[in-house]
Amino acid sequence: MANSRFEYVKLFERENFLLPETHIVIRVDGRGFHKLSAKYSFAKPNDLGALELMNRTAQKLMDQMPDISLAYGDSDEYSFLLRKGCGLFERREAKLITTFASTFTAYYQFYWPQYMKQPLEEDRLPTFDARAVVYPSEPTVRDYFAWRQVDCHINNLYNTTFWSLVEGGMTPKEAENELIGTLAADKNEILFQRFGINYNNEPALYKKGTVLIRGPIFEDADGQRDKSKRQQERQEKKMKKRPIVERHIDIIGASFWDGEKEEKKQESKEEVAGEKL
Amino acid sequence: MANSRFEYVKLFERENFLLPETHIVIRVDGRGFHKLSAKYSFAKPNDLGALELMNRTAQKLMDQMPDISLAYGDSDEYSFLLRKGCGLFERREAKLITTFASTFTAYYQFYWPQYMKQPLEEDRLPTFDARAVVYPSEPTVRDYFAWRQVDCHINNLYNTTFWSLVEGGMTPKEAENELIGTLAADKNEILFQRFGINYNNEPALYKKGTVLIRGPIFEDADGQRDKSKRQQERQEKKMKKRPIVERHIDIIGASFWDGEKEEKKQESKEEVAGEKL
Amino acid sequence: MANSRFEYVKLFERENFLLPETHIVIRVDGRGFHKLSAKYSFAKPNDLGALELMNRTAQKLMDQMPDISLAYGDSDEYSFLLRKGCGLFERREAKLITTFASTFTAYYQFYWPQYMKQPLEEDRLPTFDARAVVYPSEPTVRDYFAWRQVDCHINNLYNTTFWSLVEGGMTPKEAENELIGTLAADKNEILFQRFGINYNNEPALYKKGTVLIRGPIFEDADGQRDKSKRQQERQEKKMKKRPIVERHIDIIGASFWDGEKEEKKQESKEEVAGEKL
Amino acid sequence: MANSRFEYVKLFERENFLLPETHIVIRVDGRGFHKLSAKYSFAKPNDLGALELMNRTAQKLMDQMPDISLAYGDSDEYSFLLRKGCGLFERREAKLITTFASTFTAYYQFYWPQYMKQPLEEDRLPTFDARAVVYPSEPTVRDYFAWRQVDCHINNLYNTTFWSLVEGGMTPKEAENELIGTLAADKNEILFQRFGINYNNEPALYKKGTVLIRGPIFEDADGQRDKSKRQQERQEKKMKKRPIVERHIDIIGASFWDGEKEEKKQESKEEVAGEKL
Repeated sequence: MANSRFEYVKLFERENFLLPETHIVIRVDGRGFHKLSAKYSFAKPNDLGALELMNRTAQKLMDQMPDISLAYGDSDEYSFLLRKGCGLFERREAKLITTFASTFTAYYQFYWPQYMKQPLEEDRLPTFDARAVVYPSEPTVRDYFAWRQVDCHINNLYNTTFWSLVEGGMTPKEAENELIGTLAADKNEILFQRFGINYNNEPALYKKGTVLIRGPIFEDADGQRDKSKRQQERQEKKMKKRPIVERHIDIIGASFWDGEKEEKKQESKEEVAGEKL
Repeated sequence: MANSRFEYVKLFERENFLLPETHIVIRVDGRGFHKLSAKYSFAKPNDLGALELMNRTAQKLMDQMPDISLAYGDSDEYSFLLRKGCGLFERREAKLITTFASTFTAYYQFYWPQYMKQPLEEDRLPTFDARAVVYPSEPTVRDYFAWRQVDCHINNLYNTTFWSLVEGGMTPKEAENELIGTLAADKNEILFQRFGINYNNEPALYKKGTVLIRGPIFEDADGQRDKSKRQQERQEKKMKKRPIVERHIDIIGASFWDGEKEEKKQESKEEVAGEKL
Repeated sequence: MANSRFEYVKLFERENFLLPETHIVIRVDGRGFHKLSAKYSFAKPNDLGALELMNRTAQKLMDQMPDISLAYGDSDEYSFLLRKGCGLFERREAKLITTFASTFTAYYQFYWPQYMKQPLEEDRLPTFDARAVVYPSEPTVRDYFAWRQVDCHINNLYNTTFWSLVEGGMTPKEAENELIGTLAADKNEILFQRFGINYNNEPALYKKGTVLIRGPIFEDADGQRDKSKRQQERQEKKMKKRPIVERHIDIIGASFWDGEKEEKKQESKEEVAGEKL
Repeated sequence: MANSRFEYVKLFERENFLLPETHIVIRVDGRGFHKLSAKYSFAKPNDLGALELMNRTAQKLMDQMPDISLAYGDSDEYSFLLRKGCGLFERREAKLITTFASTFTAYYQFYWPQYMKQPLEEDRLPTFDARAVVYPSEPTVRDYFAWRQVDCHINNLYNTTFWSLVEGGMTPKEAENELIGTLAADKNEILFQRFGINYNNEPALYKKGTVLIRGPIFEDADGQRDKSKRQQERQEKKMKKRPIVERHIDIIGASFWDGEKEEKKQESKEEVAGEKL
């Protein structure tokens, strides 16, 4: 089969097959979005168009990859959960993460004109990197997503306060100093007292980020262990047919994970995840 | 520093730092380009616009990454050689390959309208995956690039003959059968006898693929071993300033690697890499 | 801190930290025991002294490593299960497997004179290699141990029949041919019809191998996730105090794993794991 | 081929094949030798018997593994260099390091009575762990071994001074304090002024450690790249026949690596590797 005496160089390739029967999470992350958002004049602290562009891109990716059962995103990042029995690319790490990174990048650029006013410029194209992390159990998966949403909350509360101070006349440096050592309660207080902003009334999209759900999150609980190839394919088809639902809800509390019946209750209830977490 | 009790989930992340003082090669590869080239009606066996688009994209990537000293591409793939002392992203594999995959994808899409007639359609965007391979020595690096160019030669000779047969009236199936078991000499013969094509006169771009060179390939021979941070930065700056030169020449023989003086001689000489290799 | 300019060579070291919150299994395996057992005239198909020596060695290792909750061994191999929250050597793979391999080797040699008649000779010392495998869930751990015990059963039934044929006058080659294509039932039949051996009455030590148990196998179910360092140490102390119990029972069926109450029932019941598994 | 439905558990095994055409170094290290040397009353700062036992053990290991071209040891550690083209165990890391750890442990115990007076006790058997590190080039290999010898020098000078102070009447704590912040020159001075010891006249075994050499160190320079299986075997046989030579010489300077002619010159010359390195 060897085409030439150089073929031996393939022996230097290394392949990392992600551990079977574990939950793969792939997180896609904007590269240099601090500078990029300045360049394209993103609104601060949140640019609605940019967030909707992220969500549209993530939806499309999820659409093309039926193995994704859940996604969560905020700011310039998105995390995708693959079902436990997922055999995509034989679970080869390099293939998985480069495919996610490049597909996300492709759709982000493709949809850009639909959401953003400024055209893209050759020397500052948006790109994304990606990493895969493997979690062995449902509780660890839940904690992963909780970690991301707590992060969203902390950043958004900070940014909302910071940009209010700046719009209120402070220099960025002064605003930064003002916020050093403040707790969540202090920031809420600053927003309310000085700017009449009740943080609880901020849009859920900004406070909670975005959850994309396709059917029962852990349905595939038995993984490949007990499944024939045919059962695997049936599972994929089943997932492909399911609609993807977008939500801006709390995923830290148990109710999100314990059943969809709880879902509506949750959306009305404002359970802010705070620094006390 | 921990923002929440969920922070422990970071402990599941694994990082692969590519071995220091080795030559990293990153190969970017089109995903599903067989279907994609049919969808967008690429000319067969070679689409000049699509190849120029690949080269333009690779040039831009090389432009942005001063650590690349050499690149070689043909068809829908491109290989990039990083200098031995390269410390980009601390040599973290995931970061390197996802950045290359997404940056290549971004520029390929961005430049598409300049080279291709059909506009891109939402459900078939071009994307690329990527892998990194580490080579410990210059001879193994040379053999890697020779391997890719031999592959280019074999594929192009086959495709040129195959599509000549098809244009000559055969069905694809008949053409395939005609070529089973043929050697390079047989294909040259078919081309010449039946279609009056002298394969040696085919464009070098098709026969040899494309080489992008930035200065001495292995100049950085001592790697990080003997270099201070400041020397590293100086090296990067130096590389950044150098112009990138595009060639369609033989990189299998020693002369390419042994010095630029030899370069011109080589270009005139038609040293076809054949199956005898 | 650097003692010399050579210190940079440490950068080439790579460490594999086994995934947290997973069940580590370390399997220790005799090197070249086919030749070694011939050299030291082990009884065939089973050498009681050699098996007791394995068990004594495994007991001692388990004694010294409180993180082991279960071990299973037969022939020249032993598998050790570490509790999920185990932080031994920070879960560094190289440290774990070389420590297990060398400690097992040390005690095997040390106890050798107590169990074996022939003294060890310089050019054929018994040594063991080791590997670590990580399982994400209790069902996969159970299946791992079932796999080893099924293997023990298949090998022992084969060996018992083979050596009966040889003792009955066949050459090893003839015995081998006689057994080609036979099922478990055929071998049982050969043993009973030709040699009056009821395989079910063979010693459980030979048929089932040996299980070493220290308290509830999966007690540590929550792993490090919810545990402080102090709780970890308390857990270790607790495990250290527990006596290690040796059994020769079925670990394929659910009853072994589902509770100790079942244990006695199981020992009397002869539930042979067969090829039908 | 599957014996049972449990066979799938093998899919969880991961194998790390060390990069081809690189120099593998395996370092074997005594576990808990601080306590062990106290338990068995090793002489301080150096126990001649214990060092000779280490050397004898390493010789035997080297004898059994023809792929080792060089070894260096001091105190309770030994580093082994495998030739670049080495295909032992297909370069599987786990197999290599556990085999080295257990074989070293086995022979250390086996030879113990020939070198040491106290018999081994059950609860404190000597064991060794091991790690493999891969170096891409000859200069990095040289620097690795230089690193170990500098370490030997620094430790031995410290220990010699420390134990002289203790024998001179200080408590260990007082001796430790006395040495804080001292340079090599200071320690040489203490030894000479207070105890009449000229460190240069200390035995080379203590100052330099031990080098075991089998023929030209890097003879196998071309590795597997250009070698057929038969050539590989011939290489192994050739190495097996070569005698192993023990030396206590400087391996930091270039002369050791640049040719054996230089060897004798070096042995007479007292080129102490100091903190100036």
